Amino acid sequence: MSDYPVHKVVIVGAGFGGLSAAKELAGAPVEITIIDCQNHHLFQPLLYQVATSALTSAEIAVPIRSVLRNQANATILMDKVVGVDHAAQTVQTKAGRAIGYDTLILATGAQHSYFGNDAWAAHAPGLKTLGDAFNIRRNILSSFERAELLADDLSAIEALQTFVVIGGGPTGVELAGAIAELAQSLARDFRNIDATKTRIILVEGGPAVLPSFHNDLSARAALDLARLGVELRLSTMVTEISDGQVTTDKGVIHAKTVVWAAGVQASPAASWLGVPAGRAGHVEVDDTLRPRGFENVYVIGDTALRVSDGKPLPGIAPVAKQMGIFVGRRIAAQARGRAASGGFRYKDAGALATIGRNSAVAEIFGLHLKGFIGWLLWGIAHVYFLIGFKNRLFVMLSWMWSYLTWQKGVRLIIRHPPG
Amino acid sequence: MSDYPVHKVVIVGAGFGGLSAAKELAGAPVEITIIDCQNHHLFQPLLYQVATSALTSAEIAVPIRSVLRNQANATILMDKVVGVDHAAQTVQTKAGRAIGYDTLILATGAQHSYFGNDAWAAHAPGLKTLGDAFNIRRNILSSFERAELLADDLSAIEALQTFVVIGGGPTGVELAGAIAELAQSLARDFRNIDATKTRIILVEGGPAVLPSFHNDLSARAALDLARLGVELRLSTMVTEISDGQVTTDKGVIHAKTVVWAAGVQASPAASWLGVPAGRAGHVEVDDTLRPRGFENVYVIGDTALRVSDGKPLPGIAPVAKQMGIFVGRRIAAQARGRAASGGFRYKDAGALATIGRNSAVAEIFGLHLKGFIGWLLWGIAHVYFLIGFKNRLFVMLSWMWSYLTWQKGVRLIIRHPPG
Repeated sequence: MSDYPVHKVVIVGAGFGGLSAAKELAGAPVEITIIDCQNHHLFQPLLYQVATSALTSAEIAVPIRSVLRNQANATILMDKVVGVDHAAQTVQTKAGRAIGYDTLILATGAQHSYFGNDAWAAHAPGLKTLGDAFNIRRNILSSFERAELLADDLSAIEALQTFVVIGGGPTGVELAGAIAELAQSLARDFRNIDATKTRIILVEGGPAVLPSFHNDLSARAALDLARLGVELRLSTMVTEISDGQVTTDKGVIHAKTVVWAAGVQASPAASWLGVPAGRAGHVEVDDTLRPRGFENVYVIGDTALRVSDGKPLPGIAPVAKQMGIFVGRRIAAQARGRAASGGFRYKDAGALATIGRNSAVAEIFGLHLKGFIGWLLWGIAHVYFLIGFKNRLFVMLSWMWSYLTWQKGVRLIIRHPPG
Repeated sequence: MSDYPVHKVVIVGAGFGGLSAAKELAGAPVEITIIDCQNHHLFQPLLYQVATSALTSAEIAVPIRSVLRNQANATILMDKVVGVDHAAQTVQTKAGRAIGYDTLILATGAQHSYFGNDAWAAHAPGLKTLGDAFNIRRNILSSFERAELLADDLSAIEALQTFVVIGGGPTGVELAGAIAELAQSLARDFRNIDATKTRIILVEGGPAVLPSFHNDLSARAALDLARLGVELRLSTMVTEISDGQVTTDKGVIHAKTVVWAAGVQASPAASWLGVPAGRAGHVEVDDTLRPRGFENVYVIGDTALRVSDGKPLPGIAPVAKQMGIFVGRRIAAQARGRAASGGFRYKDAGALATIGRNSAVAEIFGLHLKGFIGWLLWGIAHVYFLIGFKNRLFVMLSWMWSYLTWQKGVRLIIRHPPG
């Protein structure tokens, strides 16, 4: 038994970054406290499939406690962090606790950003949490149900059967494709409306979808979306969103269901630390993933702005994971009295986005893959990276079932009692 | 083509009764409109497993449209019935429609009843819908999370780790057993609290649990519950429920999570028809399942009071199903110009209730089964009666996974944005 107090590591956020750091610290002579306002780790890359009835919430989420059950040095608190008192070396929580740290890892992710138009949130919800996914799923499915009820009011039916997705990045493309497939799968479900006449409009401010991909893949994604019936509105800026209406610089779209996939903003970590925030609220970090002037505070994942080779690293799962592993290893080495190794370097394995059945684009180790091969790779990669054997098995089975039956299985409208 | 208008059948409610009637009318020369305020048929006998993290909502619910996709004579409207104008032969809906019928089937089920103490609902939610199940699941899981946060406040932790289930019928027994198993499965998940020290208290007004079962089975269920650590408070009447406190005629219980499984009340069908309601709001029906004085209105399932051999038929799925089939066949025969056959007779195959792993009681064709054999039969029967191959497969796999790992997979606290 040592007389010295054990080194206390507080990790805020159990997303890809925070969880990777925690796992890397298994067995290290540290006491870890992981604080998250959710009780589950969420596999966000597949969240759009919950929003579009293809997967259930339990298939892509796993209790944080399950993941770390056997890691004796990890305590999990379901609580919301509201501030950091760096002078006192404590984290303040909503439940009123002050949790002391020797080392702090902020891995708090990002939220939607409406670029200052917060009133749009009510009409165009974003997709970050399971609650968001349920909300969007309910909006989409209820639109079809309301249209079926109306029967006569053609302009109202048209607005109910028009879905607008704002933002042409991976989330927007995947959502638009999945809504199109959902509508097709409903072809024989309604008697008064024609579900196949559903319009899906993807609005993107720039000149191409998937702007982070190479031109050929971005063009192929646009082609595959068009084949699914998705209408692309490129170089189109949204100027106003109200109930049932999206106004752009190119005209007005009447639509009852609008989904926001256009912008994200980092968590308030910058204000907690009292450091200047980047354009989207990010905290700039050095090559050890610490903000300037902080010896024992790390900021990782979507909250961090790490400029590498003149470009900021993207806010995607592999970056967050690698950052978590880097920081975890660094703290473990220090706790064992070893020297910390060099700086963080992102190993870019590529990027993937799916458009629909048999259709995805992938840049992987320099290769450009499309169509069925890209889609297969996309599916394998996503199943592989899911946490938990049960999730892998069930997601695979759900996908196989959907593939064979052309049906989306989770078309449930669940109303929640208040509270 | 006939010049006569097609016979219009309106079915209110797509539970076991309404759905069975609709399926029985497939191919009959009638036009069916099914109205339900949910978009899914729910397999209610397994709802408690969603409330206790064993199954996902999609495993026990299936969109009504999926079930009747290929039945061309059926139209489904997701809408809420607010009244019946029998003089005009129409059903009034919340969306403002008046839907005409030649024959009306009311299969609107039951809701919780707090015996006039509606204020208890806020502190002791009941379990009838998927929304209810999510609500209870969130309450249960959040109690453990809050207890883990408190660390020092022992009496608060005790109240958070005390769960009260009110009502010793099948739902109450199954809920209490499932909460006990959930708590055991969490043994290694917490660091500050001991999840195995969770108290589950089952309060029943009568002298035995499962009063509708034979004495030996009811006694065995009590024994199996006690083995799981459930405390039975029999012959105990609840007199008051407030936040964190259940008052009974035998004393006060401090508990933050209380679930109501004590009473149900039929839907307002009696008031829609302007007929006198039975004790729990039921509509009394004759052996053709029609209320006295109504030629073309049927009331079936939990809404109906059908006295047979001097005893009212119980509000369970097999009764509702058989009633639905009876009414569907009768209407089909009449629509084809054939004489309707005799009166409704319930074929009682028995009853089942599970207490936990390897433990259930069953009365089946006069046999009394207990323990592992009863449990196996319970599982097979419930998988068999699920609607949809995917549900059967996934429920079976989920159960197998839980059985092998001793874990409950769906421990997700999902907060929903308002709206």
